Amino acid sequence: MTSPSHSPGNALRRLRQTTPLVHNITNHVAMTPTANTLLAIGASPLMAHAQQEIQEISAISAALSINIGTLSPSWIEAMQLAAMCAHRDGKPWVLDPVGIGASSLRQYACRALLEYRPSVIRANASEVLALAGEMNQGRGVDSGDDGEDALERASRAAVALARTQNCVVAMTGHVDVVTDGQRQITIQGGHALMGRVTAMGCALSSVVAAFLAASRASLDGHDDTLQATAAALACYAEAGETAGQSVEGPGSFVPRFLDALYTLDADSTLLASRLELTDVT
Amino acid sequence: MTSPSHSPGNALRRLRQTTPLVHNITNHVAMTPTANTLLAIGASPLMAHAQQEIQEISAISAALSINIGTLSPSWIEAMQLAAMCAHRDGKPWVLDPVGIGASSLRQYACRALLEYRPSVIRANASEVLALAGEMNQGRGVDSGDDGEDALERASRAAVALARTQNCVVAMTGHVDVVTDGQRQITIQGGHALMGRVTAMGCALSSVVAAFLAASRASLDGHDDTLQATAAALACYAEAGETAGQSVEGPGSFVPRFLDALYTLDADSTLLASRLELTDVT
Amino acid sequence: MTSPSHSPGNALRRLRQTTPLVHNITNHVAMTPTANTLLAIGASPLMAHAQQEIQEISAISAALSINIGTLSPSWIEAMQLAAMCAHRDGKPWVLDPVGIGASSLRQYACRALLEYRPSVIRANASEVLALAGEMNQGRGVDSGDDGEDALERASRAAVALARTQNCVVAMTGHVDVVTDGQRQITIQGGHALMGRVTAMGCALSSVVAAFLAASRASLDGHDDTLQATAAALACYAEAGETAGQSVEGPGSFVPRFLDALYTLDADSTLLASRLELTDVT
Repeated sequence: MTSPSHSPGNALRRLRQTTPLVHNITNHVAMTPTANTLLAIGASPLMAHAQQEIQEISAISAALSINIGTLSPSWIEAMQLAAMCAHRDGKPWVLDPVGIGASSLRQYACRALLEYRPSVIRANASEVLALAGEMNQGRGVDSGDDGEDALERASRAAVALARTQNCVVAMTGHVDVVTDGQRQITIQGGHALMGRVTAMGCALSSVVAAFLAASRASLDGHDDTLQATAAALACYAEAGETAGQSVEGPGSFVPRFLDALYTLDADSTLLASRLELTDVT
Repeated sequence: MTSPSHSPGNALRRLRQTTPLVHNITNHVAMTPTANTLLAIGASPLMAHAQQEIQEISAISAALSINIGTLSPSWIEAMQLAAMCAHRDGKPWVLDPVGIGASSLRQYACRALLEYRPSVIRANASEVLALAGEMNQGRGVDSGDDGEDALERASRAAVALARTQNCVVAMTGHVDVVTDGQRQITIQGGHALMGRVTAMGCALSSVVAAFLAASRASLDGHDDTLQATAAALACYAEAGETAGQSVEGPGSFVPRFLDALYTLDADSTLLASRLELTDVT
Repeated sequence: MTSPSHSPGNALRRLRQTTPLVHNITNHVAMTPTANTLLAIGASPLMAHAQQEIQEISAISAALSINIGTLSPSWIEAMQLAAMCAHRDGKPWVLDPVGIGASSLRQYACRALLEYRPSVIRANASEVLALAGEMNQGRGVDSGDDGEDALERASRAAVALARTQNCVVAMTGHVDVVTDGQRQITIQGGHALMGRVTAMGCALSSVVAAFLAASRASLDGHDDTLQATAAALACYAEAGETAGQSVEGPGSFVPRFLDALYTLDADSTLLASRLELTDVT
């Protein structure tokens, strides 16, 4: 369903070969987990939020990941500058609108950042619904037929958001859905304990950025944001499933998950089988 | 010694049923451990310190936890606003005066925050002594009889602090002491390695906030801050003791402690037996 | 090769006896790992960056560790004040110029901080090369003979930097090199996974600060910054090697490393054998 060059295994191989430098402006809770997750899978993390160094940091980075979890006005300004540089220089960047439903400030930050056209929005279902509604000028996302289940409704919001923002939307949860507004890939896997560990989603956003960077760096001319994003999610789902197999709780899950990312077999036939592509046009 | 509805087991059950959203303004060291601890026991963590979103975050939160570990002037202002909202709206909140003896700034912050009447002050013995002395207009805490041991002296300071501040004081250490100025509950348990892991006390303060929220949410009309606090400490002590049973050091203690919080049996008869209630009037 | 009083084992013993309080102004990623590392080895961590409390925090601290990883202007100001206090009061302090090659702001911060004469600069080879070049007025570090390998070239830069800054330079990597410009100690050990875990180097800088504090606190009058630094690196290398023996990846490495620091045997004959002293005058 994906071309061989975009299979999750090949994408992972490219990431490990290129060890892309990912610039992260993320929340205070996710700082350490995000750095460790990027290192475990084979990327190189860099955290920096001073406006005075954003342009130089952007210049040496292969991708950018922005997460609005613990905002302050000066951090929003830094995020804007970083997104501006990435957009200007054609570098991939990922927006994680974490908790966007919680405050006007988060909605303000997301609107400001969407000006710089993220390559990917990575969020959970409720954040996708909130962001789709927000960008729909407050008219809300229609509530769907009575028979429609929550995942269907959120998937429809993801497709709508991908179209209005002209980007890829990666909606993660029990089942992951990735869409560019035309195509949609669902990804199976992961483990329930991932919801009991902080920053799993935040770190995934930065992993997506790393896969986008590796995809751009590939010389075969087949960059595909949708498939690179799906590959990142497939690797994450595989590592989560592996880690969850014999743990007793969320504490022991964390080290095993990082080990699983580190030892993830790019030749695993399971990886590609996690993906299912459909047309949503 | 506690009414059945306030037994630690029932309190834990209520917390897991209500998954209360706890707003944390905590120090940079404690961010990740606090989020993971709240998730492990069954609560929902939210960290936010931007003044522009405090009121909205407060509105959706069930409780607030403030820790003065890594202050800056703008963070103190945010803490004041958050405590102001919690006080105004009758939501429970916990103050952790970590390292209050270390600087005038920390004493200033605590005085400013005490204006908004925390439900609980969670601290270690030296912090209780420093805070009791500070709030005693610099006259210091009297040094006690020669025969009085350190725990007795600190317990007396805790009772005095609870009375002057009209709140519950949870003083944790080798033995935990919780008091509202009239009643005192001691809690046995825990493990020596808890002193060799960062942010164990900071995270506990947020766990107390979660138990207070669950207690308020209960419909039986028996909200009791003292007993909800003691229940939180009993669960923590039990998990600490379980985690410490076979670890080799503070590194392996952390994942096992989170696992132990996650798997903590609300029906454990040990939980209630950790508590001993006395009258201190 | 070292006097008995400066053997790594004795240095570790002194650290555990004195549990020195180390003031850290470090980056957001390294906060929690640094605190846990200091606690595991037997020191006492304190993080504080508010300008209003720097002087008081400095007064109660035995050593200072500054890391420029996630700068902002107000944090640089706090770093300057902390370094100023340490220099004025003759307290040891360590500078970690992490990522100094990445931006002018980091170079600015390092220049500003070097005014206050750090006791030790702890960095990796590329940071040593960048800092030596920077302090050489942009004339760069000469590129060496063709036959010279990367480690030799970096070691020469470390010696030059130690001489111009009149401090000890601890350059860590596959092999560690510590020099005061006259003597050079190499340290063998560690594990490849240390490069796949975030903040290992940052935390080491704070461990060096703790060893410097313990060395100053010793009553035998044999304070030696070079040897105290080498002792810190030997303990770290030993713990890293121990932790790496049976782990599956970087996730399980972290708890085992902290356990290994905690259980590190001060009587281990391996510790001293890791060091090799040479004259570089």
